[in-house]
Amino acid sequence: MFEAKVTVQLKKGISDPEGVNTLKAIHLLGFKKVQQVKTIRTFDLLIDGTDINQVKKDVEQICQRLLTNPVIHHYEIAIEQKK
Amino acid sequence: MFEAKVTVQLKKGISDPEGVNTLKAIHLLGFKKVQQVKTIRTFDLLIDGTDINQVKKDVEQICQRLLTNPVIHHYEIAIEQKK
Repeated sequence: MFEAKVTVQLKKGISDPEGVNTLKAIHLLGFKKVQQVKTIRTFDLLIDGTDINQVKKDVEQICQRLLTNPVIHHYEIAIEQKK
Repeated sequence: MFEAKVTVQLKKGISDPEGVNTLKAIHLLGFKKVQQVKTIRTFDLLIDGTDINQVKKDVEQICQRLLTNPVIHHYEIAIEQKK
């Protein structure tokens, strides 16, 4: 069993409207020292299997085909073996 | 300047519809070995200031008042000094 954490972030220069609106709300609450808010999504996948290389390939495929948009996102994969 | 990473996750037992639907889509793509998908949100805040204790207090307040719902979420804060 493996746990794969996929972290999906917007590329530099791509606008992050959720981050911008969160920043506005933070300022409205009076926290004026906050300069920037970026949002990051993480998908935590639990995967059956014994071959870490196969799991890596599968997660890479899942990222490219489903979880991310290569035009606007970059992503990182961290895989850990679970007992 | 400080960078605060706020990780917001659903509490155990709270359903994660986005994770459930992502899992369905992954299965439809043919990756049947994926057992579970959990989604996690991270807010990356850039905060002006010199006093880490004040920054910690502010981020704690921002979490409680805006970023999280204590009924369904638990959160973690990691603060790092930036040059």
